[in-house]
Amino acid sequence: MENKKYVYLFSEGKAEMRDLLGGKGANLAEMTNLGIPVPKGFIITTEACNKYYDDGEKIDEEILKQIYEDLGKLEEVSGKKFGSLENPLLVSVRSGARASMPGMMDTILNLGLNDETVEVMAEKTGNPRFAYDSYRRFIQMFSDVVMEVPKKLYEALLDQMKEKRGVKLDTELNADDLKELVKEFKDLYKKEKGEDFPSDPKVQLIESVAAVFRSWNNDRAIVYRRLNDIPSSWGTAVSVQEMVFGNKGNTSGTGVAFSRNPATGEKKIFAEYLMNAQGEDVVAGIRTPQDISHLEKENKEVYDEFISIVNKLESHYKDMQDMEFTIEEGKLYFLQTRNGKRTAAAALKIAVDLVSENVLTKEEAILKVEPKQLDTLLHPAFDVEVLKSLIPDAKGLPASPGAACGKICFTAKEAKERKKNGEKVVLVRLETSPDDIEGMVAAEGILTVRGGMTSHAAVVARGMGACCVVGCSEAIVNEDERYIEIKGTKYSSNDFISLDGSTGNVYTREIKTVEPEITGYFDTFMNWADEIRVLKVRTNADNPKDSAQAVKFGAEGIGLTRTEHMFFEQDRIMAVREMIVSDTLEQRKKALAKILPYQKKDFIGIYEVMQERPVTIRLLDPPLHEFLPHLDEEIEELAKDMGITFEKLKNKVESLHEFNPMMGHRGCRLAVSFPEIAEMQTQAIIEAAIEVKKSKGYNIVPEIMVPLVGEIKELKYVKDIITRTADEIIKKEGLELKYMVGTMIEIPRAALTADEIAKEAEFFSFGTNDLTQMTFGFSRDDAGNFLNYYYEKKIYEQDPFAKLDQVGVGKLVEMAVTLGKKTRPNIKLGICGEHGGDPSSVEFCHNIGLNYVSCSPFRVPLSRLAAAQAQVKNRR
Amino acid sequence: MENKKYVYLFSEGKAEMRDLLGGKGANLAEMTNLGIPVPKGFIITTEACNKYYDDGEKIDEEILKQIYEDLGKLEEVSGKKFGSLENPLLVSVRSGARASMPGMMDTILNLGLNDETVEVMAEKTGNPRFAYDSYRRFIQMFSDVVMEVPKKLYEALLDQMKEKRGVKLDTELNADDLKELVKEFKDLYKKEKGEDFPSDPKVQLIESVAAVFRSWNNDRAIVYRRLNDIPSSWGTAVSVQEMVFGNKGNTSGTGVAFSRNPATGEKKIFAEYLMNAQGEDVVAGIRTPQDISHLEKENKEVYDEFISIVNKLESHYKDMQDMEFTIEEGKLYFLQTRNGKRTAAAALKIAVDLVSENVLTKEEAILKVEPKQLDTLLHPAFDVEVLKSLIPDAKGLPASPGAACGKICFTAKEAKERKKNGEKVVLVRLETSPDDIEGMVAAEGILTVRGGMTSHAAVVARGMGACCVVGCSEAIVNEDERYIEIKGTKYSSNDFISLDGSTGNVYTREIKTVEPEITGYFDTFMNWADEIRVLKVRTNADNPKDSAQAVKFGAEGIGLTRTEHMFFEQDRIMAVREMIVSDTLEQRKKALAKILPYQKKDFIGIYEVMQERPVTIRLLDPPLHEFLPHLDEEIEELAKDMGITFEKLKNKVESLHEFNPMMGHRGCRLAVSFPEIAEMQTQAIIEAAIEVKKSKGYNIVPEIMVPLVGEIKELKYVKDIITRTADEIIKKEGLELKYMVGTMIEIPRAALTADEIAKEAEFFSFGTNDLTQMTFGFSRDDAGNFLNYYYEKKIYEQDPFAKLDQVGVGKLVEMAVTLGKKTRPNIKLGICGEHGGDPSSVEFCHNIGLNYVSCSPFRVPLSRLAAAQAQVKNRR
Repeated sequence: MENKKYVYLFSEGKAEMRDLLGGKGANLAEMTNLGIPVPKGFIITTEACNKYYDDGEKIDEEILKQIYEDLGKLEEVSGKKFGSLENPLLVSVRSGARASMPGMMDTILNLGLNDETVEVMAEKTGNPRFAYDSYRRFIQMFSDVVMEVPKKLYEALLDQMKEKRGVKLDTELNADDLKELVKEFKDLYKKEKGEDFPSDPKVQLIESVAAVFRSWNNDRAIVYRRLNDIPSSWGTAVSVQEMVFGNKGNTSGTGVAFSRNPATGEKKIFAEYLMNAQGEDVVAGIRTPQDISHLEKENKEVYDEFISIVNKLESHYKDMQDMEFTIEEGKLYFLQTRNGKRTAAAALKIAVDLVSENVLTKEEAILKVEPKQLDTLLHPAFDVEVLKSLIPDAKGLPASPGAACGKICFTAKEAKERKKNGEKVVLVRLETSPDDIEGMVAAEGILTVRGGMTSHAAVVARGMGACCVVGCSEAIVNEDERYIEIKGTKYSSNDFISLDGSTGNVYTREIKTVEPEITGYFDTFMNWADEIRVLKVRTNADNPKDSAQAVKFGAEGIGLTRTEHMFFEQDRIMAVREMIVSDTLEQRKKALAKILPYQKKDFIGIYEVMQERPVTIRLLDPPLHEFLPHLDEEIEELAKDMGITFEKLKNKVESLHEFNPMMGHRGCRLAVSFPEIAEMQTQAIIEAAIEVKKSKGYNIVPEIMVPLVGEIKELKYVKDIITRTADEIIKKEGLELKYMVGTMIEIPRAALTADEIAKEAEFFSFGTNDLTQMTFGFSRDDAGNFLNYYYEKKIYEQDPFAKLDQVGVGKLVEMAVTLGKKTRPNIKLGICGEHGGDPSSVEFCHNIGLNYVSCSPFRVPLSRLAAAQAQVKNRR
Repeated sequence: MENKKYVYLFSEGKAEMRDLLGGKGANLAEMTNLGIPVPKGFIITTEACNKYYDDGEKIDEEILKQIYEDLGKLEEVSGKKFGSLENPLLVSVRSGARASMPGMMDTILNLGLNDETVEVMAEKTGNPRFAYDSYRRFIQMFSDVVMEVPKKLYEALLDQMKEKRGVKLDTELNADDLKELVKEFKDLYKKEKGEDFPSDPKVQLIESVAAVFRSWNNDRAIVYRRLNDIPSSWGTAVSVQEMVFGNKGNTSGTGVAFSRNPATGEKKIFAEYLMNAQGEDVVAGIRTPQDISHLEKENKEVYDEFISIVNKLESHYKDMQDMEFTIEEGKLYFLQTRNGKRTAAAALKIAVDLVSENVLTKEEAILKVEPKQLDTLLHPAFDVEVLKSLIPDAKGLPASPGAACGKICFTAKEAKERKKNGEKVVLVRLETSPDDIEGMVAAEGILTVRGGMTSHAAVVARGMGACCVVGCSEAIVNEDERYIEIKGTKYSSNDFISLDGSTGNVYTREIKTVEPEITGYFDTFMNWADEIRVLKVRTNADNPKDSAQAVKFGAEGIGLTRTEHMFFEQDRIMAVREMIVSDTLEQRKKALAKILPYQKKDFIGIYEVMQERPVTIRLLDPPLHEFLPHLDEEIEELAKDMGITFEKLKNKVESLHEFNPMMGHRGCRLAVSFPEIAEMQTQAIIEAAIEVKKSKGYNIVPEIMVPLVGEIKELKYVKDIITRTADEIIKKEGLELKYMVGTMIEIPRAALTADEIAKEAEFFSFGTNDLTQMTFGFSRDDAGNFLNYYYEKKIYEQDPFAKLDQVGVGKLVEMAVTLGKKTRPNIKLGICGEHGGDPSSVEFCHNIGLNYVSCSPFRVPLSRLAAAQAQVKNRR
């Protein structure tokens, strides 16, 4: 059997080998093949990285052998040699995963230097200071990055040396100073590691390669992967490239370039460079880089070559490129190219421009914008430049994107009042409850200590498009004494707090926010997405305002109206409570009769906004105790208001207590116990549709959804209540009105018996929040307590409540789709869990043939784009 | 298409057609074919009953047609005719399901009587009093059973008549009195129903048939079916049979017979009869029946025929028969035969005797005993005769069988003390917690208001073999004021209460209990079961005492040792709490080190009892907050004991609070967060095995079980901790010790990804309690609040926590078996949920190829028998 190839020369690769060679490596190969001047080198594959982990963090002999082989070839073509006293080879070592991944290992430059080669270099460049400066930098970089000797120990030595010499800047140290510093650095290394600094360039190389592999699994990389849907199984490649130097004098230089403006998308090369400088100097900010236009004057020939390569790369990759280049003694080299990061606004403009320039088709352009990026176009944001200089004071889960800044406020009531008085406030709570809704509306943003990505605060905030950070467990909130404590400091009502809902960062200071601006490019681009996609996008909305917002964002219907949110409103909560404490059917019906006109009005409002778009209304879902207070004082007060005794109400509250409310008396179990609730809701749904038909002429076809079904007989029982009630009303009115009855698939047993369920259900809507809870056996409200341990130990890489678990939950969903279609081939299939607003989950829904996804209003554009991308990738 | 046959003459049926004709009908047919004298008749099938329901409670035209056809044939062969003035046909109408089912419709006798035929009958028998007495009984029976006119209204009229005539006994009324009473009865009927009493025998018949069909779904029948695993889809048949009269004078009589003694199993015909009497007189107890031996003297010919038929029926059916017979004017008729109900002791003796008599093979004999019946042999019981006269005062769920009687006790502590003082007490609680264990041990029985069949009280009581009734929601318990209120009366510490754990009945009085007695028949019979079965039976046991009990009952190993029960014991709970409140790893390890010797001792004790039988030990499972108190006073006290501040402990308790503890931080999630706990437990498991190996020479192969796994990486992580710890100890000891690492399959995702899980798991143990919770999405602690509505509405017929849901949960289990075997063909498969002690679930486990079931010690014999029966029914 032939041995697997783990190491590729640049000339052996190409752009399509990205999975194997990493993004950086594949592009170096591609540039090499395009004839662009690239310093020679080779790439160690991502498979070598995976093997490293499979073998218990050891580099296999075969891989070592291949590295040495390609090193030999590199020495041959360059005419240089590792450790040579005539012409020593120096290389850079870089990590490069399939996707660009900050948080992994930094570059190591100048590898190959030791006490001998540094002398050769000093002599060959005639610049001993440069040689020793490179050497001390290499020692520090290698020690820090590869051997985990803290950088600050080296910096302390550097500072001592400057003090000793009475100078302020590094550049003021001369060659001898640096030579002495190198000695001190090596002594430090020996003290820390118990062995000499490795002088053998081969040892330096192999240690560096292993360090790159290890950096794939450092904490920052793991967090980044989780936030960006990157599986740990991808691994990273390592590129090893001959050094070129931009600091060899005045004919040398280095710079970075974008083929278009990454902030605005303007079609104009955007590049900066510094002569006589190395890579890090350009970003370090000590000297101010020159605009590339200056190069035209300095060296027209190199400039022209540069422009031509930039253009060549952009048209080759059909996308805006982000490049690094170096000029060594008048000769231009490209060290890297990649599709450039850009703001959302720039991404849209570039995608639309590339289509007008006939570079891309619409289908190709659709893939050029990250769906999640659209968020920033719809929400206020912090000024990126201001943020750069700030360290977050705490971190929570990024529950709902956007930026918020205001004074701290601990109750909903206070938020409402202070907002009325013109103050901007941020609502800070241990956790929110339905009682807090008005305060959440009034606040700029919401911060909670407890709860996960699908906690009450998170779901409601996303629905409203409000910035929200949840589960910030490092903060201590004392609602009674009205303070929040972060890192030992207490902040109260007069202090500012700022939240970044896109990162989960919390700042205990005022940071100005920038309002979003939607351009014409957005509409053009989203129209293309709509032309392409086959998956419909609906919204989860519980009131006319949210529904209107969603329609504005392109929603094609409502996939989920949660009727319980309506039950909490001030004008009806008393009737709801009266219904709950009823002892008899008559009492309960009397209370329900009071709620009916409100529910009807709710539905009329929604139907009028949605016009003839489909509207799915879910029957009452939460356990009844959610509508009652739990503290004795509150019970006392309510009992007085209701004119009943404290004992009676207290007994009711206690009798409704549940050990595991998520798995308790809720969903259709309420309709089975109290059919009159489902009757009242059906009446409201149908009568509202009739009224809107009469007043506006809209043909409403309500989709009535029964939640939490686990057994066909259960659905049949509730469906019979619905159809009996609905048909009677329709008959009495003497007109035509169609309606559908379907169910949520959110209980594993419903998915397992979907063939049976489909006998009664005209549609399935996958409630993947609950389905995820039941399939994993963890409560979304409690998982926060242990999921961090799971991320840390790489057991889970993703929050399954944010990104659909395609392995387990997805298997149940697919099973239900197959079984459901077997019974009812044209069954309507949708998803209304939070996953309907997650790009990779939307793609999964497209692939398994759902008709629609439904998500919160502010996620509608994202889902429209994700659906279009899914169709481009996997036409159906 | 030929019409389906819905009605069969007795001569057209046979015993094998039980499903279609019901037990009673099939046996009447069989007896007819055997040439035994049976009054002629026909049977309306169970399919007709099902069609009745499918058609919305209407008897189909085709069925009516077939009834009339067979009625015609009956008239022809009997020479009698419905409503005939010469020779009127009178019939009885009886219900008869596939399984014998008390709770359904009573028999209707004398159907066919009306104002004309009663006169014919008076004349033909020369006994007008008999004719009118039959007529008034028929009116009353038909009104009550068929038309739902309350019986007591008729009884009131009868009482008035007796008062008017100045007599005491019904028999003192003469023919004219009864004739007048018939008129009053018919007037009452008209007043109640608004129409005349039906005089047309055909109308009487059809109404009666419909009433039998309806009685299939009355409340008592539904409850009986649920308790006895009878699906509602079976339906009932109806038999219509010509009347014969045992009350036609001194040459007539009626009686009941058993072919062996139903109480002891003694091989001796056991029969009683009364001359000149009708069926109900024998059981009514007004006249004392004669022993059958008396008949030999009265009428040797009939007696000999009787004995010969009884013997013929027993050897035909190869089982003890329960028969009804009538002698009409010297001619013997058999009206019914069926396999007789018998006590558990009788069942064993009869089964063993029938094998010695060469009537049955061992395999056939095995099927003759209901597994659930064995319970009564292992637990105390109430005297059946005493019970008969008592109405239960309340009813709960029959959580753990047996009978208990004692004075009421509201706390565990009190139970312990009063027991020490020689009192017998019953522990009455809202619900029990692990704190109550010692009180539960001290009590005769346990009654709780809350909780279901797998609540804490139920599981623990079954484990101990203690009588327990849970979820008795009609009782109000006030633990502070120490009373229990049932039906408006309060009972306190000095009152007696009696519990029947086999029915769930609660009596507010003292009832004597009878201790069980195990005979040699039990051992013989169970040995046969063991020879036959292939499914192994293990036990769930957490301590040496329960383990020893289970071994005595035939357990072949331990399928589940719950280590957390050990954590609660007084001598270690403080160390456990210390571990929980630890702030650092060091503190936690220090506390764990204190627990280690106790755990080790626990395991040594269990290994010594089990000798070399396999022992499966589950790592810590419950959420940590279960080990801490929750009330401020208790927290205060504990904080003082622990030498920490109230605030610190209170904060800890609050930080551990979970919304849905069942889906929270528990199971292997604890081991992932705090690997040191799993390390300590592994150390205890392995060191104990080594110690027992050294001291006793037993080769222990511990099976270490990781609970609540949902993802392969999670299992891998914990398995790595276990193997690292175990291998190190074994290596240090320098000896050979095998151990296995496996997992519970109790999270749906584990079942769905069982092929992956099996890569690491050497065995699967299905935790069907949790799997049922997650698959249905209901918490066993909360389901009680709504399951009654579900039973009432026939959505669920069974408690899925008592009987495995083969449709949904079973599908997941089968999927996991298939996937698991695909990866690891010889994977060991078992079940350790409560279902391991349920006969139908054991059969399911046999059928899908599990290696063993594991159940509480007192259920081991039951499961052994159920496993043997499964093998007889479905050889594998």
